[in-house]
Amino acid sequence: MQNFQFYSPTKVYFGKDSVQHVGQAVRSFGGKHILLHYGSDRVLKNGLMDRVVASLNEQGLTHVMLGGVVPNPRVSLVEQGAALVKAEGIDFILAVGGGSVIDSAKGIAMAAVNDCAIWDIYARKAELKAALPTGNVLTLAAAGSETSNGTVLTNEENWAKVGFGHELLRPTFTIMDPEFQFTLPPYQTASGIVDIMVHTFERYFSHSGANELTDRLAEQVLKVTMRYGALCMEQPDNYEARSELLWAGSLSHNDLTGLGRPGDWAVHDLEHELSAKYDVTHGAGLAAIWASWARYVYKNDVMRFARYGVNVFGLPMDFINPENTALEAIRRTEAYFESIQMPTSITALVGRAISDEDKVDMARRASHGDTSTLGNFQVLNQQMMLDIYRMAD
Amino acid sequence: MQNFQFYSPTKVYFGKDSVQHVGQAVRSFGGKHILLHYGSDRVLKNGLMDRVVASLNEQGLTHVMLGGVVPNPRVSLVEQGAALVKAEGIDFILAVGGGSVIDSAKGIAMAAVNDCAIWDIYARKAELKAALPTGNVLTLAAAGSETSNGTVLTNEENWAKVGFGHELLRPTFTIMDPEFQFTLPPYQTASGIVDIMVHTFERYFSHSGANELTDRLAEQVLKVTMRYGALCMEQPDNYEARSELLWAGSLSHNDLTGLGRPGDWAVHDLEHELSAKYDVTHGAGLAAIWASWARYVYKNDVMRFARYGVNVFGLPMDFINPENTALEAIRRTEAYFESIQMPTSITALVGRAISDEDKVDMARRASHGDTSTLGNFQVLNQQMMLDIYRMAD
Repeated sequence: MQNFQFYSPTKVYFGKDSVQHVGQAVRSFGGKHILLHYGSDRVLKNGLMDRVVASLNEQGLTHVMLGGVVPNPRVSLVEQGAALVKAEGIDFILAVGGGSVIDSAKGIAMAAVNDCAIWDIYARKAELKAALPTGNVLTLAAAGSETSNGTVLTNEENWAKVGFGHELLRPTFTIMDPEFQFTLPPYQTASGIVDIMVHTFERYFSHSGANELTDRLAEQVLKVTMRYGALCMEQPDNYEARSELLWAGSLSHNDLTGLGRPGDWAVHDLEHELSAKYDVTHGAGLAAIWASWARYVYKNDVMRFARYGVNVFGLPMDFINPENTALEAIRRTEAYFESIQMPTSITALVGRAISDEDKVDMARRASHGDTSTLGNFQVLNQQMMLDIYRMAD
Repeated sequence: MQNFQFYSPTKVYFGKDSVQHVGQAVRSFGGKHILLHYGSDRVLKNGLMDRVVASLNEQGLTHVMLGGVVPNPRVSLVEQGAALVKAEGIDFILAVGGGSVIDSAKGIAMAAVNDCAIWDIYARKAELKAALPTGNVLTLAAAGSETSNGTVLTNEENWAKVGFGHELLRPTFTIMDPEFQFTLPPYQTASGIVDIMVHTFERYFSHSGANELTDRLAEQVLKVTMRYGALCMEQPDNYEARSELLWAGSLSHNDLTGLGRPGDWAVHDLEHELSAKYDVTHGAGLAAIWASWARYVYKNDVMRFARYGVNVFGLPMDFINPENTALEAIRRTEAYFESIQMPTSITALVGRAISDEDKVDMARRASHGDTSTLGNFQVLNQQMMLDIYRMAD
């Protein structure tokens, strides 16, 4: 087990009607004048925002609203939000939505209090010195941003999609009510399931020797995600299934499932190029390329993939040819993605065949013009990235 | 799944040489003048305290020392510590030791800043209004107090042992170095293993319907604790085994393994009477009575114990008579306790047969003179408590 630090201070309010705690939660973490940040009008129409506002009002808190966050959230809205925060003297950002809204809120929390262009922080050209506190009312089990230290933004000027993580970005609290998820479109539920699975994969498929407790927790998060994810697809208003998936989503990304391991985020980085170029849903993009990555790299640690097959899918171990178990595990994962109507190729993801020039361009961007590599389970250079994009065709 | 709140903000520094972070950690959580609290001289002699002091000095922090914490820590030392804190203007309590030292530190953190006798807080006669921040350098995988909101103290005046929990008591950070555990006496290692297991049992064996992810995490914590606990007994300086046990100890008690369930702490409460009366080690006391409790209550939910047997011990499920699987699971647990030289009866625990009057007295005290019950998996009245003490004879 490698040395690690684990810091997950986000307070979780989980369950039916937990939104009633939002005003008290904001106040307990020091908020007085709030930016209410959201995406689509769904939260305005379904009554959720009314309940949030009522709870804030009850606590004597004031607010300003800023909607319009889109999937793959944009820098321009973050800049607009930061200007609003400064003009209004806002001291707390409350996100009401899924990962995109929470990521955008984290961007605003930084942009409002650092004397630099916000993109310079994401581009590692400027140092993060402070951030306003954020909290969130989560409406989609997927990104894990509700308890993570991470945020991903897209810059419309060059369509670059870049992630950034810092301890100052951990949300102070999250409100998780499974009922908010009953009316999600199936495609969003399915994309969320894949995102949760791949957050766990990116930590699980890495080198560092024995790490039994962490590995076992990761395997259970995967089993629960797949089983209850499938049930959510069949029965969107199944409270228990939504509960399991929602909690698995947070645990998959609050670091618990990767402690003592280095992690390998190559699939996420490869996907970021796909969603930057085609504006596709992140989870669907992950489904389109994960199995190609896995087939490309599994020989670096056949036993790791075999263990995954045995412990997560209950496959019989092939002790003579462990490779058979490893490859069957990858096939099963792909079959699971298909069973929840997720694409398992780039063509299925984008809705048409993409050009080889586009693949070359994505590999070039993902490797920063061949100056950097991705991952460590297998270190990928630009040519290898291109190979994987081509395999995923 | 029941609604829950989860708040585990303690920052974990895990691994070899993690003690080097202690000074910086104290400073980041606002400490300037520190009470260094410890138990036996072991930490003075083995060089650990020197490393702690060096790290504090490096950060320009000053300190005062207070040792002498004993297992089943006493109110009198907490009062002495609080007087020292007030006289010295101390702003942070740093515990260097196991659960007893950390519990004592939490007691001092309360006693120093509330205008009441500290025992009144434990006895629920006075309200906790504030507490100084605490941190800890953990030397024993057992109590879980390093990340929990709980503390247990013993009052020498009437030999009452009482637990108290409050969010203000969560340590700000914990330093966990598996190497600190290499030189532990086997009896302490074994008692720690039982404590970790029973912290998980007390959450796992409770009613609340389906709660799959939490249950699965609890089962893996149990499997890892038993497997690596046994290895620690055989190879006290096995770094990986100590690491697994240490991390399992924290996860068993930071609430993660019980989220969405009510918990049933009857075995802990029954044990507190044993250690108050005979001053025995808490974990050993739990081993002495757990199986008697389990045999007394298992009929309330046979399938729960059968699940435990199948998922933790890999027992074949007896689908015709699930009771056989349930009872075998209890037997296996008892056999495991014996395999690590833990007592499985009160006679073995205390070293002699105890009188029936003592059992009557413990049941009377545990039920507060028959005015209160324990637990909910089966609600236990005074007579039932006495039955269990007699079964555990």
